[in-house]
Amino acid sequence: MPKRAFEDFPPGLELTLGPRHVTRDEIVAFAAEFDPQPMHLDEEAGRRSMLGGLAGSGWHTCCLMMRLIADEMLAQSTSMGAPGVDEIKWIAPLRPDSDITVRATVTAARRSRSRPEMGLVSFRYDVHDQHDTHIMAVTSTMMFGTRESTTA
Amino acid sequence: MPKRAFEDFPPGLELTLGPRHVTRDEIVAFAAEFDPQPMHLDEEAGRRSMLGGLAGSGWHTCCLMMRLIADEMLAQSTSMGAPGVDEIKWIAPLRPDSDITVRATVTAARRSRSRPEMGLVSFRYDVHDQHDTHIMAVTSTMMFGTRESTTA
Repeated sequence: MPKRAFEDFPPGLELTLGPRHVTRDEIVAFAAEFDPQPMHLDEEAGRRSMLGGLAGSGWHTCCLMMRLIADEMLAQSTSMGAPGVDEIKWIAPLRPDSDITVRATVTAARRSRSRPEMGLVSFRYDVHDQHDTHIMAVTSTMMFGTRESTTA
Repeated sequence: MPKRAFEDFPPGLELTLGPRHVTRDEIVAFAAEFDPQPMHLDEEAGRRSMLGGLAGSGWHTCCLMMRLIADEMLAQSTSMGAPGVDEIKWIAPLRPDSDITVRATVTAARRSRSRPEMGLVSFRYDVHDQHDTHIMAVTSTMMFGTRESTTA
């Protein structure tokens, strides 16, 4: 099967990735390792915070999103990585026992002028939970090899 | 000791956080869990990629930065969290056995008009390794309670 290349990500393309379940234990373990703020570790501290209850780190939501992107969009692709992220909006809390999905929408695609064997694809990612609550929005650009570059 | 509040983050303030060591095993374990792209898991795949060798996920660099911020800047503060991230630039690869530091610079600080008990502090974070290689730049705004809000 040919790899998914730059040409396979036209503007307007929408992919739905997931769902992925996340447990309370995963939320607390992630926070203990990377973001040990009280509202990510403890129910009572969460209730006292603006989050209104135990909630995962926003970075955890990013990492769960990345895993879905890697597994369901980048595996068997010509992905060459990403130079960064344009924006992350943490809109609603990530709650224990959520099932999250990622909707990836291609907002722009162009060939690199300096490296014609590569194209730049801009995505908007919208993360929702099982209640259709919009948890996070991310905009980011990825680099993909063109179809010719992989068959050369 | 009083908590570090909004007023303690004036524009121009620079804090240096770290260093934090990161091993090859941590890089591979993070990638296996959250970003299983070949260049984050395997030396040979890394060499064939634009990264020129095994390199950590950019999200791993974000998470290591967050841990330093949580431990050394937000602990014992009036932090109320962050609504998102304005920009992430992954500038150079995160290599195995790096010692990373985060320089946090306050670029702006203002009281919230709608919630005067809270202030918004904008930061630029620059992450370097032990060779002074600039690995990542992040801009983000955090919310802190004002000094009065915590003594009220």
